[in-house]
Amino acid sequence: MKNRYAIMKKKYAIMKNGYVNEPIRGIACRKFFFLVLVLSLALVCRAQERKYSTFYYQRATLFEELPVTSDDIIFLGNSITNGAEWSELFNNKHVKNRGISGDICMGVYDRLDAVLKGKPAKIFLLIGINDVSRGTPADTIVSRIGMIVRKIKMDSPKTKLYLQSVLPVTDHYNMFKGHTSRWQVVPEINKGLVRLAEKEGAAYIDLYSHFIDKETGKMNTAYTNDGLHLLGKGYLKWVEIVKPYIGKK
Amino acid sequence: MKNRYAIMKKKYAIMKNGYVNEPIRGIACRKFFFLVLVLSLALVCRAQERKYSTFYYQRATLFEELPVTSDDIIFLGNSITNGAEWSELFNNKHVKNRGISGDICMGVYDRLDAVLKGKPAKIFLLIGINDVSRGTPADTIVSRIGMIVRKIKMDSPKTKLYLQSVLPVTDHYNMFKGHTSRWQVVPEINKGLVRLAEKEGAAYIDLYSHFIDKETGKMNTAYTNDGLHLLGKGYLKWVEIVKPYIGKK
Repeated sequence: MKNRYAIMKKKYAIMKNGYVNEPIRGIACRKFFFLVLVLSLALVCRAQERKYSTFYYQRATLFEELPVTSDDIIFLGNSITNGAEWSELFNNKHVKNRGISGDICMGVYDRLDAVLKGKPAKIFLLIGINDVSRGTPADTIVSRIGMIVRKIKMDSPKTKLYLQSVLPVTDHYNMFKGHTSRWQVVPEINKGLVRLAEKEGAAYIDLYSHFIDKETGKMNTAYTNDGLHLLGKGYLKWVEIVKPYIGKK
Repeated sequence: MKNRYAIMKKKYAIMKNGYVNEPIRGIACRKFFFLVLVLSLALVCRAQERKYSTFYYQRATLFEELPVTSDDIIFLGNSITNGAEWSELFNNKHVKNRGISGDICMGVYDRLDAVLKGKPAKIFLLIGINDVSRGTPADTIVSRIGMIVRKIKMDSPKTKLYLQSVLPVTDHYNMFKGHTSRWQVVPEINKGLVRLAEKEGAAYIDLYSHFIDKETGKMNTAYTNDGLHLLGKGYLKWVEIVKPYIGKK
């Protein structure tokens, strides 16, 4: 009777917690746990070995080699930042490109040290659309950007941080469907970024409304040829919006 | 009898030339040719509309907007050039990135005007590995690079041109198989580039031998994480080799 109760208690514990509280002494069990441990460690090692794309590490290892100074103005983000030639666009050698195509919020967070080591004067951040493409909800994206903001404030408190709105996208070209089919997530993120900027004392820059086609609520097709990335004309528009903030201390 | 001969003559002409020399007056024939003409025009238009990737046009339209001056030093090429931050690496604001990921020889040729408009002081060209991945033979690649060289000489005769060797690749990572499986084509191209440089009065810069693993004849895995593109350490090596030519007029 006691045996049946003990079995039932174990079954209940497994249902409730997914494991049994009692110490397990059977050799088979120990072997099993050892196997699980080894497999988990192997998975963790593999994940640490390659958390992001090979391109991420090509750019990130370059950024580690490049100096940053307190005169520098850093454009930080994904492919949309990566694609430009910022120092040329602003005719200012202190403006530096720290974009990585395909990057997500946590990818930016994980490489902040290489930017913050030099305590740059300003950071212009634009990140989130690749998180959107993975189905991450707007509030999760905003809270991850919050992690980035707090790390910048902590490690380089004199750096002036500009949170740029996520740009609109359009499914007009039937490309990047993961991104462009979720076009309605973008304004949700931007609302969150306005609140985040206010809460953390950062500046918010609205790019979104300049790039939107008001009739469709999607990216104006004049600025893009794939619905996600910018043509030269798009970068000129961006520069026009951001230029007043580049000169200011 | 004459009719049978005429038919046979036509058949023979079609077999030999693919067409009949005699004027064709039949309405069906005229309709057919009109149809072929319209279809050919439609194909040509479509090809002109999008000859290269969307990314190509994103970068190319940006380059069209960016000024080039006679003080400038242009790094021109594909993803391997695109991936670096050249002005930072040489601490020289005149050094400019004109790389486009995925670009091929004719892609570079087709966007030379945006580079040559400013009669730059120097051009460092590195192109060809994406042509290799498409199965283009070494001598065709070299002759296409020859077209680039001659256009530069014609349109901007004072520009000093540096033909950089194509970098080695490695199939060690099992990535970019189209490129890395054809690793033996690279030294063939480089032999052709040495001859081309001599013939056209350009300078040849050997990067290849600095990046090769002498045991395998492939790219040294210390410089790459995918067998084709460079890590930060690879870009530092490149800069070390090229630096003596940056200061020289």
